Amino acid sequence: MAPAVTIVSTSPRTGEQGAAFDGASREDVSHAVLLGAAASDSWAHTPPGRRAAVLRAAADALNSARLDIVRVADFETGLGEPRCQAELDRTILQLRMFASFIETGAHAGVIVSPGDPAASPPRPDMRRLLIPIGTVAVFTPSNFPLAYGVLGGDAASALAAGCAVVVKGHPSHPHTSDLCARAFHEAAAALGAPVGLLSLLQSGAPDISRALVEADDVHAVAFTGSQRVGRLLFDVAVSRPRPIPFYGELGSLNPLFISERAAGARRDAIAGGYIASVTGGSGQFCTKPGVVFVPVGAAGDALVDAMSAQLSGRGPSVLLNAGLGESLRARVAATSSVAGVSSISAAAPLPGEGVHAVPQLFVTSDATFFANEALRAEHFGPVAIVVRTEASKMPEAAARFDGQLTATIHAEPEDDAWTRALVRVLMTRAGRLIFNGYPTGLAVVAATTHGGPYPATTAPLHSAVGTTAIRRFLRPVSFQAFPDRLLPAELASPEPRGA
Amino acid sequence: MAPAVTIVSTSPRTGEQGAAFDGASREDVSHAVLLGAAASDSWAHTPPGRRAAVLRAAADALNSARLDIVRVADFETGLGEPRCQAELDRTILQLRMFASFIETGAHAGVIVSPGDPAASPPRPDMRRLLIPIGTVAVFTPSNFPLAYGVLGGDAASALAAGCAVVVKGHPSHPHTSDLCARAFHEAAAALGAPVGLLSLLQSGAPDISRALVEADDVHAVAFTGSQRVGRLLFDVAVSRPRPIPFYGELGSLNPLFISERAAGARRDAIAGGYIASVTGGSGQFCTKPGVVFVPVGAAGDALVDAMSAQLSGRGPSVLLNAGLGESLRARVAATSSVAGVSSISAAAPLPGEGVHAVPQLFVTSDATFFANEALRAEHFGPVAIVVRTEASKMPEAAARFDGQLTATIHAEPEDDAWTRALVRVLMTRAGRLIFNGYPTGLAVVAATTHGGPYPATTAPLHSAVGTTAIRRFLRPVSFQAFPDRLLPAELASPEPRGA
Repeated sequence: MAPAVTIVSTSPRTGEQGAAFDGASREDVSHAVLLGAAASDSWAHTPPGRRAAVLRAAADALNSARLDIVRVADFETGLGEPRCQAELDRTILQLRMFASFIETGAHAGVIVSPGDPAASPPRPDMRRLLIPIGTVAVFTPSNFPLAYGVLGGDAASALAAGCAVVVKGHPSHPHTSDLCARAFHEAAAALGAPVGLLSLLQSGAPDISRALVEADDVHAVAFTGSQRVGRLLFDVAVSRPRPIPFYGELGSLNPLFISERAAGARRDAIAGGYIASVTGGSGQFCTKPGVVFVPVGAAGDALVDAMSAQLSGRGPSVLLNAGLGESLRARVAATSSVAGVSSISAAAPLPGEGVHAVPQLFVTSDATFFANEALRAEHFGPVAIVVRTEASKMPEAAARFDGQLTATIHAEPEDDAWTRALVRVLMTRAGRLIFNGYPTGLAVVAATTHGGPYPATTAPLHSAVGTTAIRRFLRPVSFQAFPDRLLPAELASPEPRGA
Repeated sequence: MAPAVTIVSTSPRTGEQGAAFDGASREDVSHAVLLGAAASDSWAHTPPGRRAAVLRAAADALNSARLDIVRVADFETGLGEPRCQAELDRTILQLRMFASFIETGAHAGVIVSPGDPAASPPRPDMRRLLIPIGTVAVFTPSNFPLAYGVLGGDAASALAAGCAVVVKGHPSHPHTSDLCARAFHEAAAALGAPVGLLSLLQSGAPDISRALVEADDVHAVAFTGSQRVGRLLFDVAVSRPRPIPFYGELGSLNPLFISERAAGARRDAIAGGYIASVTGGSGQFCTKPGVVFVPVGAAGDALVDAMSAQLSGRGPSVLLNAGLGESLRARVAATSSVAGVSSISAAAPLPGEGVHAVPQLFVTSDATFFANEALRAEHFGPVAIVVRTEASKMPEAAARFDGQLTATIHAEPEDDAWTRALVRVLMTRAGRLIFNGYPTGLAVVAATTHGGPYPATTAPLHSAVGTTAIRRFLRPVSFQAFPDRLLPAELASPEPRGA
């Protein structure tokens, strides 16, 4: 056996160390997946009402542990207590939302097509049900220690669907992950939920991630993280002897397009809103609007000046860990070195500033932006690119983007023709379009789509947020000519349903 | 340029040759995909009612060309005119079913979550719509020249979804493919549908298939065919710089499980039904029940005798092409060579019998069946394996199967506990369960699932048949805080919908 690795809770602000956790071994992966297989079988046949009770109890347990969780999450991430409070609220809301959703039965996707013995040939009774896919591996990111963490949206939707989950916790916040897993285990045990329904593997080791994706009894993967790691694990998932669905959310540039009229009419509001959206959470949101198209001309010039003024009031902020600081500096250096790119910075950028990031805007032309691939990779931090172009060329520019999680338009009523042209293009490029708003601060509701074409995600048909996220972990089974007494409870009813 | 390949319509019965068609070149692939991209953009914004009209006109055009199509399909496939008539009926029905379905608007998956300005933070209005994914490549199989052909379920559902399609026609029936494409083009042109909405590439060349899956402007693939070719093309689809969904239906063993009571009570009916299901269409259905579990003991013995008697009345049948004859003989030879396998044949098997196949049953034990992988590969033809085992061991045996399109149980009311145990296992293994029936002769209704875990398909969340098949070609987009006037028509309505 390889020597055990220890993962230590560390404050990015101070470098102070807290609790230490054993890193998962390959044996731990096998054990978690084995327990998951047994738990999946039992959980899949647990009525939705009882599954909902476990989700709600987990939500209550998180709420009860709020003081500890928020303190530890803030210590490990540097995101600040208010943000950790809000994120815990969202995590609790998500668990309760999926609990309520499965109680309605809508997740089961029941369709009943009655038979017709008089048809030629006679048509048998057919009833369709969505059932859980089996154990799901969940890979959590660094930037949402709670809402995409051990009990975040992926785990909550998989558990609601009737799947066991094996979570690979991010090494940037091991103690937060541990607290969430403990809250779940206590709540679930009290309600008699199966052992192994949720396992936490603490690890930052690529071979452990790979072993989890390769495990025979893992039936789907939900991943939130970088394009590089996401594609690597996607490749593992689809290269298995039995390929499995890989739901990867890999980040995005989230372009904003601003009309000349909007720039003129709402200069300060847009400048303030945009810079707040770029710098919120130290710019470490997958929905951060990393590029903004500002029209050439006086109104656009004034908007860029206003953005610059907004930026100047902001000091350096703390990133989640030192690795991200290093990556961001490398990205910023690559962007700076492109001819035709100039920089507006909140303060003089400090080389070697550790986990601190200085909010920064780059300004360039559309020609330079599309000619340089370096400019079109995500800056994971409070850094964005302003692209100056004629508004009339923005629909054409929009068509040059690949898959995005979001795209945003700022426009006035007189711009409707232009807005419609942009919408028509952006629908084909993004999972969510926003009008006169900002992509960060995603609302978790039934109609939410958090997804999009590759490389925003590896599964363009699905959403990672909102009630529809549960569909990722359900597969259809049809029952032909079964008598009621032998049908699953959801199907044992005679009236036709579904179209 | 490579020299043009010619694909000749050939009768498997007589070897007689008919019309010849130019095989597609790589330039043809590029051209079809280029036309498809333009057509997809226009078609995606064509209202569902107008799309429905084109699908109905195509159905009518097929019906008008019925005499020619049935004659040519029968000539090229040897399936017989009644089967070709029935398959054309199903093809027409499918086109009309998707036309009616999109007129209901249900395919658009609209969800409206109203905003709440009083919430903290304020919640924006969110509206979700499913939109077409873009051009779809369709690979048609040899065994369903019409229902899974150029205007079969994959093309019909993709067109209904709002996607252009590029069909790679199977070289075993080029003239049938050509007639179907012509019927569509005339009907579509008369209604002003975009050029390039459906293109037919005639080819049997692996590099042409690969080029189509690799084409940048192809956004999804629907494939019906063998596990070998399906996996090869799946690997191409997921290895692209931008991976795309690959909906492969790769065939299945479709196990049947028979209780002792059912064997006793319905011996002759089951023997007749089973042998008819195995030999129908010369056993070339993806739903052919290629393995049947018959209980040991007197009732099972008598059932096997009755199956044997049913078989003896049947002569050799014609396969779709000589390549399939060769493959089947190789498979049969491999099965025959396994120790512990005995054979019941309708007639003395003729080595080198060309396109003719002799209906044949093999008999073995469950131990032998599961110990030899050669026995668990599909026999594509009128050949099946009888596995003798104790009924009480059948649930355990069922758990040893990998993904299947279907699984069937024959049981009496007194068997309910046994049946429930089998259902619980088989739900996790198959896309459709059948009670006291046979898997062939699939009903095309809303509740149909034609799918299942790998290797039955490469996309376990989806069905290739029935109205839900359209979901494969739709992806969600959410509109946040858009005024009604800027929303797609489907969303421009204020009332909340969806849960």
